[in-house]
Amino acid sequence: MNAEFINPFIAAFKNVLETMAMMTLTAEAPKKKEDDLACGDVTGLLGMTGPQLKGSFSITFEAPLALDIMSKMLGEKPTTINAEVIDLVGELTNMVAGGAKNTLGESGFDFGMATPVVVSGKNHTISHRVDGPKLILPFKGEAGRAFIEICFEKA
Amino acid sequence: MNAEFINPFIAAFKNVLETMAMMTLTAEAPKKKEDDLACGDVTGLLGMTGPQLKGSFSITFEAPLALDIMSKMLGEKPTTINAEVIDLVGELTNMVAGGAKNTLGESGFDFGMATPVVVSGKNHTISHRVDGPKLILPFKGEAGRAFIEICFEKA
Repeated sequence: MNAEFINPFIAAFKNVLETMAMMTLTAEAPKKKEDDLACGDVTGLLGMTGPQLKGSFSITFEAPLALDIMSKMLGEKPTTINAEVIDLVGELTNMVAGGAKNTLGESGFDFGMATPVVVSGKNHTISHRVDGPKLILPFKGEAGRAFIEICFEKA
Repeated sequence: MNAEFINPFIAAFKNVLETMAMMTLTAEAPKKKEDDLACGDVTGLLGMTGPQLKGSFSITFEAPLALDIMSKMLGEKPTTINAEVIDLVGELTNMVAGGAKNTLGESGFDFGMATPVVVSGKNHTISHRVDGPKLILPFKGEAGRAFIEICFEKA
């Protein structure tokens, strides 16, 4: 799992939040232990397939951060993770994956993106089942944390 | 969303459980409403991409059913959804999707399968974000329910 794969996802995530929510998150130290799991209240997930690799990508948000993003992007701030927030997280997942796909395509890594799935539920955990390295990238904003996870294995 | 797409997933699911857990589940009436969401305690999800279609597939289990399946397949019965149960749900998701892929391939529908992601958390909901029909297929076993959801859109 090299930086060439991961950085486009980080860059796309930060770019989407900065341009659409005027929000800057701070990247924290990556978690690499086998038993580390991303944990939060709403998650966007997306599968990817390509000629050499297949894998999965997820962004997990703590509820206060997801609600803050929604407020800054759309001017509405629900009190809980509702259908509109789920919608938004699905869109964000698509945008981040799409941005990363474009960048990776320029380096010769072509992927097909599946469609996003959004999970909602207080304190759920996400476990990517791959034969390969896994990396959890935590981000911190004023309102809470988000976790990006990108995992690949040979197709 | 026609039966030709869905039936291979149903058949593969029932086949995996019957051969590996000696368990027969009863299919209940499909749920088609926009606001119906699959809800449970542990879910295996997998993205799919192909030349004409892309989509996502999920199996959501209520905890008592997941634990019962684990008990019948592996002889162990944890009291809660732990790392071994998460492992098993990931394997089941792969097996069901793989079985469906083979059947669909024989009909000329070729898909690349991404890698599974397993969600764990009491009473979470799953929302597939597709421009297209969605169908939730409930199954009932002695110990509890499972929900299969398969969604596709044009690639």
